[in-house]
Amino acid sequence: MIAEQVLSGDRRCLAQAITLVESTRPEDREAADTLLDSLIPHSGKSIRIGISGVPGVGKSTFIEALGNHIVDQGHRVAVLAVDPSSAVSGGSILGDKTRMEQLSQRPEAYIRPSPTGGALGGVTRRTRDTLLVVEAAGFDVVIIETVGVGQSEIAVAEMTDIFVLLLLPGAGDELQGIKRGIVELADLILVNKADGANVSSSELAAADYRSALQFLSPRSANWEVPVMLCSATECTGIAEVWNTIEQYQQALTDNGEIASARASQAQSWLWTETANNLMDKLRNDPSIQQKITELEQAVTEGRTSPRVAARKLVEDFSK
Amino acid sequence: MIAEQVLSGDRRCLAQAITLVESTRPEDREAADTLLDSLIPHSGKSIRIGISGVPGVGKSTFIEALGNHIVDQGHRVAVLAVDPSSAVSGGSILGDKTRMEQLSQRPEAYIRPSPTGGALGGVTRRTRDTLLVVEAAGFDVVIIETVGVGQSEIAVAEMTDIFVLLLLPGAGDELQGIKRGIVELADLILVNKADGANVSSSELAAADYRSALQFLSPRSANWEVPVMLCSATECTGIAEVWNTIEQYQQALTDNGEIASARASQAQSWLWTETANNLMDKLRNDPSIQQKITELEQAVTEGRTSPRVAARKLVEDFSK
Repeated sequence: MIAEQVLSGDRRCLAQAITLVESTRPEDREAADTLLDSLIPHSGKSIRIGISGVPGVGKSTFIEALGNHIVDQGHRVAVLAVDPSSAVSGGSILGDKTRMEQLSQRPEAYIRPSPTGGALGGVTRRTRDTLLVVEAAGFDVVIIETVGVGQSEIAVAEMTDIFVLLLLPGAGDELQGIKRGIVELADLILVNKADGANVSSSELAAADYRSALQFLSPRSANWEVPVMLCSATECTGIAEVWNTIEQYQQALTDNGEIASARASQAQSWLWTETANNLMDKLRNDPSIQQKITELEQAVTEGRTSPRVAARKLVEDFSK
Repeated sequence: MIAEQVLSGDRRCLAQAITLVESTRPEDREAADTLLDSLIPHSGKSIRIGISGVPGVGKSTFIEALGNHIVDQGHRVAVLAVDPSSAVSGGSILGDKTRMEQLSQRPEAYIRPSPTGGALGGVTRRTRDTLLVVEAAGFDVVIIETVGVGQSEIAVAEMTDIFVLLLLPGAGDELQGIKRGIVELADLILVNKADGANVSSSELAAADYRSALQFLSPRSANWEVPVMLCSATECTGIAEVWNTIEQYQQALTDNGEIASARASQAQSWLWTETANNLMDKLRNDPSIQQKITELEQAVTEGRTSPRVAARKLVEDFSK
């Protein structure tokens, strides 16, 4: 029933559905699984865009500008955003209210903030499920924002079709992008804030990145990673960015790369989930809690090797 | 029995013991576990050094020079080396024989080459076990070499006390180190081949790295990562490198950081091994092979969500 309401575009039900699939309460799990199974035949029809960049690069302003442009082109856009109001560090100091204010008021857009925090800074095991839900609700462009922590960027790259990296013009900033191997994940690099006095430093930064890219292997052999300039606040370069994203999607859909990437993403998601479920089961198994405590201590004190302890743990669990 | 011979310093038995613990044959597993359990009380007394750098940086020449110096100081050195003769790409074209020729002939040194290949390029789940075995055999310095693939470097950093990164002087090479976030793992950075005409470019490279380090957070708050020059072929700077490693070890032993790092390494090794064992069990369970095939296909074709498929798989496995 909630599935039908999501499919019909009921926004309140959409919010409830996402809350349900993101729930960590064990008693919600079966309902969430049932819901997902009803929605999945209707999912998969969007362009999945990952957007990353360090705090201060202007991610939310950029997403608002890009989102507005995409809606203007006749699309429906869902944004799975990081909510900076709950962030310990980083994110906008202006808080959540002023983020994407205009975009959030358009009926063709849906913004879902996730609290930051946890190992993946707002991106969770459940973000992938939320992606399927908003697709089923008819959004044909889904933007997933990350806060620029290494692991979360890899996670987002593994659930999207195109990974867009926002960078700042100017010295030192090169390192922020390069140091975590994030540039290697990017299918499209944008130097944001390329306006006013920043234009020439932006062009220099873009040239630097272009030459840096020669050392890296691109994710697709059929796509040369473009480095482009834009200014989210002045809305320059945004149309070109969207055109490039569409070209990418077209080219890699035509040659089958997106279909095969999605199939392999789904496979690896299956195995990651399986491993997580199994380990949850083991860690919560009341009959081996004592054993876990003992073995953890023995390993910490160097009385037994982790390998032997692991074998004992699995043997006891399997009994 | 083999344990006693390892403890007594019998080199042939040491080689057999390592082969046993590195064996992937299920029938060797119990004997390997028993052996490890006998050896572990005698392990843990070495300085564990990880050494990394891109192919061509001179890793084996450096390890030979450093190893010889360490032996001259009265230590016993084990090197868990990558064997380039089996490498598809990278490594020395001269082959294995000429690697560390002098060091390999000294009775105080033991060199164990591992074939490269696999996801971790020569470093495996079993390298950690080999480390314990050579420690039990009385080697008080253990050097673990990696080939410079991102994942293997993280794995080596997680099994050693100090991670040494070798870099080349000159342009472009900065990127090779920085792009994979490897610089962030380093406790000590060495610009190798700082000899002859390379001296000034080495000094420039060192200065570049020093300023780059300001953007990165060091692994220990109590250790400022030094950037030093050396030449393995001319044996310059090698004594200083060893002094620095000893200083590091002393400082971080005194303040308890090495003990707590090793304890947390052992914990995470326990849980990784547990997850690997559990997943091996699930993947090889004959009663769910049919289910695995069905669910993998359903997930690939988008008929079911990975999350729901994972739950079904774990339920069937647990029956």
